[in-house]
Amino acid sequence: MNIIGKPLTRVDANEKVTGKAKYTGDLVSPHALIAKVLHSTIANGVVLSFDLEEAWKVPGVVDIVTCFEVPDIQFPTAGHPWSTEKKHQDIADRKLLNTRVRFYGDDIAAVIAEDDIAAAEALRKIKVTYEEYTPVFSVEDAMKPGATTIHEEKPNNVVVHSSYEVGSFDEAIKEEGLIKVEGDYDTPFIQHCHIEKASSFAYMESGKIVVVAATQIPHIVRRICSQALGVGYGDIRIIKPYIGGGFGNRQDALTEPLNAFLTTRVGGRQVRLEYTREETFACTRIRHAMKFHIVSYVRKDGSFAARSIVAYSNQGAYASHAHALVANAVNGFRMMYPVGAIKGEAFTVYTNLPTAGAMRAYGIPQIGFALESHVDDIIAKTGFDPIVFRKQNMMKLGYVDPMTTITCHSTGLSECIDIGEKHLDYTNKRKLYAKQTGPVRKGVGMAIFCYKTGVYPISLETAASRMVLNQDGSLQLQMGATEIGQGADTVFAMMAAETVGLTMDKIHVVSQQDTDITPYDTGAYGSRQTYVSGMAVKKTAEVFRQRLLNFAGFMLHKDPWDLDIKDNFIVHKNKTERLLSVATVAEESCYSLTNSEHISAEESHHCSDNTYSFGVCFVEIEIDIPMCQIKVLDIINVHDSGTIINRQTAEGQVHGGMSMGLGYGLYEHLEFDQKTGRMLNDNMLDYKLMTPMDTPELHVAFVETDDPTGPYGNKSLGEPPTIPVAPAIRNALLNATGVAVNSIPLNPEKLFFASRDAGLIQ
Amino acid sequence: MNIIGKPLTRVDANEKVTGKAKYTGDLVSPHALIAKVLHSTIANGVVLSFDLEEAWKVPGVVDIVTCFEVPDIQFPTAGHPWSTEKKHQDIADRKLLNTRVRFYGDDIAAVIAEDDIAAAEALRKIKVTYEEYTPVFSVEDAMKPGATTIHEEKPNNVVVHSSYEVGSFDEAIKEEGLIKVEGDYDTPFIQHCHIEKASSFAYMESGKIVVVAATQIPHIVRRICSQALGVGYGDIRIIKPYIGGGFGNRQDALTEPLNAFLTTRVGGRQVRLEYTREETFACTRIRHAMKFHIVSYVRKDGSFAARSIVAYSNQGAYASHAHALVANAVNGFRMMYPVGAIKGEAFTVYTNLPTAGAMRAYGIPQIGFALESHVDDIIAKTGFDPIVFRKQNMMKLGYVDPMTTITCHSTGLSECIDIGEKHLDYTNKRKLYAKQTGPVRKGVGMAIFCYKTGVYPISLETAASRMVLNQDGSLQLQMGATEIGQGADTVFAMMAAETVGLTMDKIHVVSQQDTDITPYDTGAYGSRQTYVSGMAVKKTAEVFRQRLLNFAGFMLHKDPWDLDIKDNFIVHKNKTERLLSVATVAEESCYSLTNSEHISAEESHHCSDNTYSFGVCFVEIEIDIPMCQIKVLDIINVHDSGTIINRQTAEGQVHGGMSMGLGYGLYEHLEFDQKTGRMLNDNMLDYKLMTPMDTPELHVAFVETDDPTGPYGNKSLGEPPTIPVAPAIRNALLNATGVAVNSIPLNPEKLFFASRDAGLIQ
Repeated sequence: MNIIGKPLTRVDANEKVTGKAKYTGDLVSPHALIAKVLHSTIANGVVLSFDLEEAWKVPGVVDIVTCFEVPDIQFPTAGHPWSTEKKHQDIADRKLLNTRVRFYGDDIAAVIAEDDIAAAEALRKIKVTYEEYTPVFSVEDAMKPGATTIHEEKPNNVVVHSSYEVGSFDEAIKEEGLIKVEGDYDTPFIQHCHIEKASSFAYMESGKIVVVAATQIPHIVRRICSQALGVGYGDIRIIKPYIGGGFGNRQDALTEPLNAFLTTRVGGRQVRLEYTREETFACTRIRHAMKFHIVSYVRKDGSFAARSIVAYSNQGAYASHAHALVANAVNGFRMMYPVGAIKGEAFTVYTNLPTAGAMRAYGIPQIGFALESHVDDIIAKTGFDPIVFRKQNMMKLGYVDPMTTITCHSTGLSECIDIGEKHLDYTNKRKLYAKQTGPVRKGVGMAIFCYKTGVYPISLETAASRMVLNQDGSLQLQMGATEIGQGADTVFAMMAAETVGLTMDKIHVVSQQDTDITPYDTGAYGSRQTYVSGMAVKKTAEVFRQRLLNFAGFMLHKDPWDLDIKDNFIVHKNKTERLLSVATVAEESCYSLTNSEHISAEESHHCSDNTYSFGVCFVEIEIDIPMCQIKVLDIINVHDSGTIINRQTAEGQVHGGMSMGLGYGLYEHLEFDQKTGRMLNDNMLDYKLMTPMDTPELHVAFVETDDPTGPYGNKSLGEPPTIPVAPAIRNALLNATGVAVNSIPLNPEKLFFASRDAGLIQ
Repeated sequence: MNIIGKPLTRVDANEKVTGKAKYTGDLVSPHALIAKVLHSTIANGVVLSFDLEEAWKVPGVVDIVTCFEVPDIQFPTAGHPWSTEKKHQDIADRKLLNTRVRFYGDDIAAVIAEDDIAAAEALRKIKVTYEEYTPVFSVEDAMKPGATTIHEEKPNNVVVHSSYEVGSFDEAIKEEGLIKVEGDYDTPFIQHCHIEKASSFAYMESGKIVVVAATQIPHIVRRICSQALGVGYGDIRIIKPYIGGGFGNRQDALTEPLNAFLTTRVGGRQVRLEYTREETFACTRIRHAMKFHIVSYVRKDGSFAARSIVAYSNQGAYASHAHALVANAVNGFRMMYPVGAIKGEAFTVYTNLPTAGAMRAYGIPQIGFALESHVDDIIAKTGFDPIVFRKQNMMKLGYVDPMTTITCHSTGLSECIDIGEKHLDYTNKRKLYAKQTGPVRKGVGMAIFCYKTGVYPISLETAASRMVLNQDGSLQLQMGATEIGQGADTVFAMMAAETVGLTMDKIHVVSQQDTDITPYDTGAYGSRQTYVSGMAVKKTAEVFRQRLLNFAGFMLHKDPWDLDIKDNFIVHKNKTERLLSVATVAEESCYSLTNSEHISAEESHHCSDNTYSFGVCFVEIEIDIPMCQIKVLDIINVHDSGTIINRQTAEGQVHGGMSMGLGYGLYEHLEFDQKTGRMLNDNMLDYKLMTPMDTPELHVAFVETDDPTGPYGNKSLGEPPTIPVAPAIRNALLNATGVAVNSIPLNPEKLFFASRDAGLIQ
């Protein structure tokens, strides 16, 4: 391949570093009205009435909308492909503004004003009378008999309860000589902390409601807005400019449906709705906190005889992605070590906390922490070698998952482990560090993961792409798939260049999606785009290339099937002599007096297969036991993501994921007032996000496999890097101290109690 | 047909009457820099130097660009399809800014400033030193030996001289008993006077130069900007919002190439370049003034034996559309009465006046005035009946033009004449009015025309269209063809609805063109869009419809070829029972778990035929001889434009064209200072444009033919209505007074001299 695999600079690099790239906020009219949302100050109850008298007096107030005036329509918000089958549809459990208040921060009213100050002032002057119920914040409390029902459709607050069993767990554990290992693991609520806050603006044009929004999923947001407002899909138009990160938070309809409604209240005038950082923390989505109970039965030969898991996922106030998350987690539990009998059970439970939704790797960081911690707990108990044990039990080439039918078409996991082991000198150090004493100790840890790519076959995977020939032989590439900072535009451009036979400078990516004209795509999530949307690019490029060759054949009086395109020139297949430039073909195809033809191609791809990517994190830490401080000395992620399309952007993805994984393992968690349910650290000062100062040098390596199902052999890479970091750190801590901490983040507070309980400090 | 032919309200009516429709000026950033052009104050010469010192001192000046700093590239500006053959390419005779000054108003420098006031102030402070040559303003002066050469490529100032002959003129006039009629006719320079002035703004994004412009021809303007700047087509992006009229003036690159260059001077910052009304008059384009000498030889049986024409077209300073205009005129001379030997000769001549370019009906109003005046001169001399004479000699069904091969596939001209005659009681009144005496008299006049549709086969006719299915079963229609106020979006939407089988509310037209993603089309001119681009819509709709039916067939387990779409529902062919809604097909095709497919279609159409439309104007006037005033008492235009797609918008087109024709005949002309060449009436006060107060009730009728070459049977209608009005008025004046005035406008000044020369006033 000529272009695939090269470490090319991002196509949007120049725009972004020079500040020219346009984000939602850059496109707002200076005459836009400003909307602000009034959020509830109770976590559980009902709005009885509003006193708007003082608010209406604020000069500049244009409209005030309360939860009593919105359409009586409940709609879902999750960024899933829609299902035409009722039972597979996302749960529609919220309105544009909610009378029934379900968390501290629920949307109950909105003000539209001429400016920011007037809107804020009016918001402060609205008085609300509530009827208040006892809030429940934990899964345990929410599931207790007598707990307030949060949504009447789910009287016991359990959104979904599901289970599976592979083989017979009860039979399997009857085997003689099994070693039982049992543990509880839990993971915290965290927030995505994308740079750009939740942001949109809306107006009406040509009879349509247009919403310009920082979203990962413009076509899905169009569907959700149409459902929320009760209008046709075609009456809504979503435009997505560059966005400042998403990480799954924007795989949900956030401000868009309400914003779409608000513009209809003011005759289609432009209305801006931008959340503050505090609102973005508390009133968008957060990562599900999950609790797991795992029981394993291991044979003396180091193989699993049986495993079981029970998972509890704290959904918060609204369903959003709901059970899909924990289902993904307990499926991941099965897939990583598909050996012996396996039994899984999962509960997704409403509570009166902010809504949990999608976040990078969608449940797998949670199960990854639980499972890989549990594996090292097994190692600790049995004395097996952690690498040998993992290699013995982990998924192998050809594995077909009995539930999802997803097949392991390629795996380089074993080589990934070897590279990581060698980088860290893990095996030797592990033995060495196990013998330490004293207040400051070192430890090494590792964790592996597998990750399926996209959502097929659990849900629909479909994508489309369009290419238009410019008359100078360059190409416009139009994608429904979205650039969200991950470099999607760059890899799509590379794929187009590779397959058509053009150089990279000839590819112009139309980065902005506009649902009126952009080919359909469900958007950026599930690390699907390079794999799924990439197939649409490849298919479209093949059709486009053939159309170019057909015209070249006509011009050259040659059979187009004997021709090829190389570096912007038409050549004979397998020869290098340049017969004609693509620019000449482009000009002639447009201006031919006998055969003018405007060459373009548009194709959609429907996925009918899936595969797994893999990886490992090895980490070396130093713990200062009295200071309750962990310092990361060395860290490497090694990934099998199939063929690497662009090593430069791929490394960037891994760096970002490792940073998120470090934050997940060491610092980040959301705190709530246990009386009111108010989020306490809803800002960038109190929420401990990784900074460059906290970040060690991040090492990255790839084991490139050539997956037969991926376009160009690639597999998912976007989300996975974040998965194995936290358990690797936790396992390094176990190596250093012998203390198994089963809850993240491993922040000083938690280390203090763990060290104290283990008798390491007094 | 269900929809074609219905008098439907324009799809953009609501947007436009409520002021919501966005024009170029509405889209400018409030932070845009302002550019202004320095125009020469001599008509012929060379810029020797600039003194910019004082101009640079003006606070807010960001850049000053002079004619010494622009790329050394001469480029063409005409909105023609490009030809890859050198000899058919438009004349490249100007630079972005010109050192060699060729008219009073030539572009010689530009200022970019932070605001309007600074730009204007700096402009005033630039001092220019010229070397001045004697300017030439008339064709006669420019062609005189010794006249200054305006462009060195054309030493004698003749841009092109061409001629043709059908049969042998010299042989034909030898016939015995022929009546010879000879006359000179001339037409004035006028201006388009579209409401929105010449206007654009430009910026750089993603490495491209983006120009948002009020243009009729976005794809052509892209090509011209790329030629002018010497960059690839793909490096330029043109966006065309709604525009406030064009009438041919915007069938030329106007401010766009310079504006594209200016943004590159300021690092891609947005630069706004909007002309004042005065600049729009003098520095964009005007209608060619033409002079014609016509000689006819008529047999006593009322048939033409031979005719000849010599035409002189005053091109002004730059080639623009140049000879194409007068060639169209002398071709029209041949086609209208294709009888006997015909000989034509045409000169297009550079002068030191503003550049003449395209204007509604492209040379045909000029020849229409000359030819139909000449016919009534024949009538006056011979006593033939004007209707009988015209019907005897005019083009008949099946006519194939010997030069262009354009065939008369349909004609309703004879019926058009009959309707007009009856409306006015023309024949009776004509006889009656011929006998008048006294100071106030009445007169009736008529004139016919034929008009070929678009530019095939003289040039390329090609168009493309794209349709995208929304998931609610509505359709996005994307056209390269442009809405310029004429109602194009409405007729395209009707065509799409008709052919796909949807109701009008299901068609969403993407009105804005963006050359990055819009299907290719050369744009709005030559009344081509309904005919040429309409074929692209029809073809695309047929493909789109079949794709919908294919999916419906899959859903219904039926042969798609047995199915049809009627009023948004899938039905059996020739049955009415609704099997499935298109909305259901749309939703399922998108979300199908087994066969998801994103239905769209994109097709291009290459014209390989052409046809003629026809029409007639009948008018009754009253002339107050001493007051030198003509009042129009009654006027009707009757058109054969094939099938009328939308009677409401069609009538609107005819009304507008008649109003322009009235202005052309009665009031409008541009005056120039005969020493400096400065345009004297370059504003809406001194230029006498028709107002509602001047406009009589405008009657319109159609004779609908079903042209076999047009999509849905239609033929051109956009430009034609303006053609026959001026000669009809002139002929009515002849009827009223016996005075043949061979020059328009028939304003009081001209009427005074004509009446005095005829002895009607002293």
